[in-house]
Amino acid sequence: MKACLIQSNPVMGDIQTNFNWIKKQIISNDADIYVAPELALIGYPPDDLLFDKEFIKKQELAFSDFQPFLKNKLLIIGGVLLKKKKIFNSAFIISHNNIKHQHKQCLPNYGVFDEKRYFSAGDNQKIISYKSKKILILICEDFWDKDLEKKYQDKKIDFCIVINASPFEINKLNVRINRAKKINKKIKSNLIYLNMVGGQDDVVFDGASFLLNKNNNVSCQLNHFKCQTKLIEESSPEKIIKPLLIEESVLNACILGTKDYIKKNKIKNVFIGLSGGIDSALVAYIASKAINKKNINCIMMRSQYTSKMSIDDAKKLAKSLKVNFIDRNLSSLINQINLNLKDDFKNFPTDITEENIQARIRGLILMAMANKKNGIVLSTSNKSESAVGYSTLYGDMVGAYAPIKDVPKTLIYKISEFINLTDNIIPERIINRPPSAELKPDQTDQDSLPSYEELDKIIELFIDEGQSTDEIVSLGFKSQTVKKIVKLILRSEFKRRQSPPGPKITRKAFGRERRFPITNNYLG
Amino acid sequence: MKACLIQSNPVMGDIQTNFNWIKKQIISNDADIYVAPELALIGYPPDDLLFDKEFIKKQELAFSDFQPFLKNKLLIIGGVLLKKKKIFNSAFIISHNNIKHQHKQCLPNYGVFDEKRYFSAGDNQKIISYKSKKILILICEDFWDKDLEKKYQDKKIDFCIVINASPFEINKLNVRINRAKKINKKIKSNLIYLNMVGGQDDVVFDGASFLLNKNNNVSCQLNHFKCQTKLIEESSPEKIIKPLLIEESVLNACILGTKDYIKKNKIKNVFIGLSGGIDSALVAYIASKAINKKNINCIMMRSQYTSKMSIDDAKKLAKSLKVNFIDRNLSSLINQINLNLKDDFKNFPTDITEENIQARIRGLILMAMANKKNGIVLSTSNKSESAVGYSTLYGDMVGAYAPIKDVPKTLIYKISEFINLTDNIIPERIINRPPSAELKPDQTDQDSLPSYEELDKIIELFIDEGQSTDEIVSLGFKSQTVKKIVKLILRSEFKRRQSPPGPKITRKAFGRERRFPITNNYLG
Repeated sequence: MKACLIQSNPVMGDIQTNFNWIKKQIISNDADIYVAPELALIGYPPDDLLFDKEFIKKQELAFSDFQPFLKNKLLIIGGVLLKKKKIFNSAFIISHNNIKHQHKQCLPNYGVFDEKRYFSAGDNQKIISYKSKKILILICEDFWDKDLEKKYQDKKIDFCIVINASPFEINKLNVRINRAKKINKKIKSNLIYLNMVGGQDDVVFDGASFLLNKNNNVSCQLNHFKCQTKLIEESSPEKIIKPLLIEESVLNACILGTKDYIKKNKIKNVFIGLSGGIDSALVAYIASKAINKKNINCIMMRSQYTSKMSIDDAKKLAKSLKVNFIDRNLSSLINQINLNLKDDFKNFPTDITEENIQARIRGLILMAMANKKNGIVLSTSNKSESAVGYSTLYGDMVGAYAPIKDVPKTLIYKISEFINLTDNIIPERIINRPPSAELKPDQTDQDSLPSYEELDKIIELFIDEGQSTDEIVSLGFKSQTVKKIVKLILRSEFKRRQSPPGPKITRKAFGRERRFPITNNYLG
Repeated sequence: MKACLIQSNPVMGDIQTNFNWIKKQIISNDADIYVAPELALIGYPPDDLLFDKEFIKKQELAFSDFQPFLKNKLLIIGGVLLKKKKIFNSAFIISHNNIKHQHKQCLPNYGVFDEKRYFSAGDNQKIISYKSKKILILICEDFWDKDLEKKYQDKKIDFCIVINASPFEINKLNVRINRAKKINKKIKSNLIYLNMVGGQDDVVFDGASFLLNKNNNVSCQLNHFKCQTKLIEESSPEKIIKPLLIEESVLNACILGTKDYIKKNKIKNVFIGLSGGIDSALVAYIASKAINKKNINCIMMRSQYTSKMSIDDAKKLAKSLKVNFIDRNLSSLINQINLNLKDDFKNFPTDITEENIQARIRGLILMAMANKKNGIVLSTSNKSESAVGYSTLYGDMVGAYAPIKDVPKTLIYKISEFINLTDNIIPERIINRPPSAELKPDQTDQDSLPSYEELDKIIELFIDEGQSTDEIVSLGFKSQTVKKIVKLILRSEFKRRQSPPGPKITRKAFGRERRFPITNNYLG
């Protein structure tokens, strides 16, 4: 039996566009069975769009428009079904004269998922028969049900087809393959894991769909982070899959997230504050892979504390990337602002306020340029600074999208080195100099923070792994440091609440995945 | 039997403080049974704080510290119970030598609620016996279970005790009382509805706990929007409750939300941009009821488009409110910014960019003052402008808290008139002049928007009531207007995502209650 895997990239809510793309794949590929992702005509996660009954009905009707193109073939595709005032996250099993449904049994309601807010769970899973093959259809979370393999181990299933909208995170693909192997060891089917691809606000779907054959080996794999349609057969030759390096997969996730935010929101131009530091360098590089270079505007906004090194490096990078470079001196503007506030501030010492003013006038200038020239600002915030609040709200945090929002600083360095291995485009000095916000004389990030190696490790233990202060200290970190970092993390929630979206990369991303009260007196 | 209703205002996560306050009420009131709210030692909604096992354990242990004060009395209080790796939202039923639990059966997972993300549902509801009385204990959503009255109508229940963390919205108290009457018509108990009070980021709990007697009349009611402890008896005389006017209840909700955000986050000073318009006037009034007047700083930030009327009215209001007033002229600063951008903008016509620059330099100045003087900015955004994006991100939207975030403009006018009935403090001209952002010559809000009466009605139908464009048009609104407004609403999600928290007031508040994708091509 020939299967056609349609690894599509839906545009949220754009039923017609999503339909057309899949229809085209069906017409141009001859197969017995076509497989498309979970909620393939809507996109994932649709959130409260699911409360729009007219929208759901339109989507439901669209599925029957596939029928004229199916003749004696079968299409298995994810969609929403409205039935007796309940909605189900379903697989639509479509032939030219019939549409059946298999509802999702397990509704994820953790992490970035809120499916119990919308969907009712299905109450029976049926094995279907097609061309004398027995097929089991699973929808995303169903695949993670612990009782699954036990339930189906003696059922002689020929194909286990799993349709997904599974968001990327570091190492997630291995976790999926390992789970698939565990299931298939018992079920001994041809297991098709079909994933969505594309960026949607806070998440990126990484595709990388695969076929696990009856010998439990990956015999075929689709692109990471790219649309693809591929014909496979049970007899497809086994192929050893080289996994992507972490650096490469995270970079690709950031690029695809940025590209799709720009494309799906029909954005024309992007503006980036290029400081001569590593974060904005990486964001500019990501932009250069996400949108035409002539639409990228990098703005160096000098103050009196900006070093010559920063200006030179920013200029050099912009030149290598072949993007527009604008060099603006904001010193006198900053002086004007300080002058305007002089009377109010006369009895107060210089403090963080003056640093924030510099960050905020930069935000203002960037936003003005983006407003005037029909574009958006890409924020350069990263996970480490967002964790401890080492960033200025309405300053360096401005932006419609934050490509590296969930990337820890140490990984930003590694990715930059990875880029330079092949592309040698980020000036070495940007990577090697001590990181600094350059908001006061001789400032470096480590004046007020531990080393990024230590900081990122503590953040990972506390946020991603949910360990307590005591547990982290018992691993050998200094108690005082851990307590300070944990307090900074909990006290910075008010900033994160007002930050732009960006792609989930780590096991627990701030925002959609980690929902925390701002007002909170529990400090661990 | 004497019951003591403890309508408490917990501080999120502050187990010790919350414990102490309730303990004090127990010690100073002699009763047979004490009743405190849902999650009374934690606060509501704790969100992902609930994943902190140590925190949950600390909270669980604290309940036993009530026992020495209970002798032959009973305390019924809401808390989280960790049992076999599951957590339950429970009523702790505490006597001096025993603690029993009744788990919540119905877990709300809609609107502002996400309880299925955290809790497991209880599987049996028991009637308990105390001093030969039969008592049924319900936790918040259990009270709304449609099958409830049928299940308990023949059980001869003496007391039905409902412990709640039920957020305020317009007219919610009536809905609660009506539901209570419907239940009690069948159950014929003494029904105690005990609610939490206080503000927590996006919601406000309005208290207003009540006793419905066996004749199904409200015989006792506690304060709206205030902590209170009250002794009641079955024989308490019936009392006719005068409901609050909508204007009064919404105003109180905004005041309590603001007060608690300030107090619970230990904030010293607040800064408000006073424009001479109605929104900032109301926010300044709310602040004056929420924090000591000497800690309130109102800043008039003039540009060349600011009318004398605005300056005079702002000054007059600040004087009446007896708050600090700072008058700053930002014209030359705005000119400096425009000058700095002149080369970049030379081939572009003047547009919204120049208006945004004015709004953003105001945001910058306000934030600088708040940073320097250890305070926060209160945002003056309202629901109408937030709906259609008629506000500047990082400009007039800046702030840590937005007291009138969910109040429609037409209601802002009504509340201001209501205030003037007793307090005559908002200059009449602020209420009567046509609203204007004063960002270009002779501008009024109605240059680009329909009348606020029409706008608010369309927003209410589309957002709060979930009606479609067609349904709204069929009610007599112009198709072109409805389509324009709906498109503006869906296109402004990116701004709302970066807005500060503020109290839910309407049936469907943006943010926590209405979760919508930013990237979305479905426009109704």
